[in-house]
Amino acid sequence: MATHGAARGPGPERAWHAALPLVGPVTLDPQESAHLVRVRRVQVGDDVVLFDGRGATRRARLVDADPRAAGLVVEGDAPDREPGRALTLAVSLPEPGRADDLVQALAWLGVARLVPLVCERTPRGRADLARARAARWERLAREAAKGNGRSRLLEIEAPRPFADLAAHPPPEGVVVLDPDPTAPRLLERLPPGAPLPWLAIGPEGGFTLAELTAARGAGAPVVHLTATALRVELAALAAAAIALSLS
Amino acid sequence: MATHGAARGPGPERAWHAALPLVGPVTLDPQESAHLVRVRRVQVGDDVVLFDGRGATRRARLVDADPRAAGLVVEGDAPDREPGRALTLAVSLPEPGRADDLVQALAWLGVARLVPLVCERTPRGRADLARARAARWERLAREAAKGNGRSRLLEIEAPRPFADLAAHPPPEGVVVLDPDPTAPRLLERLPPGAPLPWLAIGPEGGFTLAELTAARGAGAPVVHLTATALRVELAALAAAAIALSLS
Repeated sequence: MATHGAARGPGPERAWHAALPLVGPVTLDPQESAHLVRVRRVQVGDDVVLFDGRGATRRARLVDADPRAAGLVVEGDAPDREPGRALTLAVSLPEPGRADDLVQALAWLGVARLVPLVCERTPRGRADLARARAARWERLAREAAKGNGRSRLLEIEAPRPFADLAAHPPPEGVVVLDPDPTAPRLLERLPPGAPLPWLAIGPEGGFTLAELTAARGAGAPVVHLTATALRVELAALAAAAIALSLS
Repeated sequence: MATHGAARGPGPERAWHAALPLVGPVTLDPQESAHLVRVRRVQVGDDVVLFDGRGATRRARLVDADPRAAGLVVEGDAPDREPGRALTLAVSLPEPGRADDLVQALAWLGVARLVPLVCERTPRGRADLARARAARWERLAREAAKGNGRSRLLEIEAPRPFADLAAHPPPEGVVVLDPDPTAPRLLERLPPGAPLPWLAIGPEGGFTLAELTAARGAGAPVVHLTATALRVELAALAAAAIALSLS
């Protein structure tokens, strides 16, 4: 796994475990045990970092190298690389293959939540992809958290119609991305200290004029990212990078 | 081709041609002719936008739908979506499959130039990938310029040792990316009006301490991107998105 820097390599291996005590013994599930002992070849006495995917990260030591039930002793808290501000992306999902790439990239970048968005131009049934791929996407999120040092897993929420999101925005607000180069820039609409607004990214062909008008009417700023027009998954990734570089 | 918005779809098709007159007839090469006439099904009388990949964009009209030698008449200049400021990325290339994805994403985002970087931890021979894939990468750059509306092709330069780049930086300067979260942020080191500095992205495992010290000694700021550690290609893409969102 190539990392830009030292999250892997020099540092200890990372493994996921659902319920982490502050100190004391834990036994990993078969999948995590096999990965740690067989694939990563961690040995008794080696340091391991455990994370629960919900914000906790602990340092631990391997005491039983059983590849079906690895035993560790948790010794205390460990630092993590979770972004300071949680970011939610509401995205009209691209085609299945590109959707996997999108989930992987968002998990690596440190996005907190992905909400599949149903827009007027979203292909029928596309938002159901999230349900069909739930297990696969959770695995991608877990792999990312092993590689990038974050303590939370990317959460995938239930699909949501854009009209509903525009009419009933979350407390932190919504910013709508549109390729119109005369719109203000995303960076200008990201508050420096406050919680990050949700970022809404439309389907191939973009939001309709009616959708943009409704969003503006509900007080959601419409912004653009960069000069060029971007495919959905690249727009989502660029938007996440820009927002997370501030937090 | 999914685009975030309306670069394709409602607008005219785009085709590449090496030498564009201000007005007058042109005949496309066989590859571009076949794409325009057979794949995109453009018909005599239809508007087409031509770009030369070096900054010129013209509106034209199809007058001969020959799939081996399509004839058009150039009518005048056309607007483009080329970023206002040229961005150069100097990147220690990832493994071949991921390098293709990287080139494609950088071309879509609107990066001007990619310089393969040879660092202490760059795998031997990796930088030669650029020469081996020159034709493929030029095709990816051309396809991106059809989809995203830019007028220039991503240029791939000859590989360059990082030590040489740090010692002899270009006039616009170099900013070095490192996952150290205590380093300043990239956004803080991008001048608002001036030409964008080159962004240098290291290999798996990062730059060595000696490389970072040499860069700092030569006056290059060392910055970080986001909280999480990123794979090379995702770091490059995130850095490009952040820099281009300002230009």
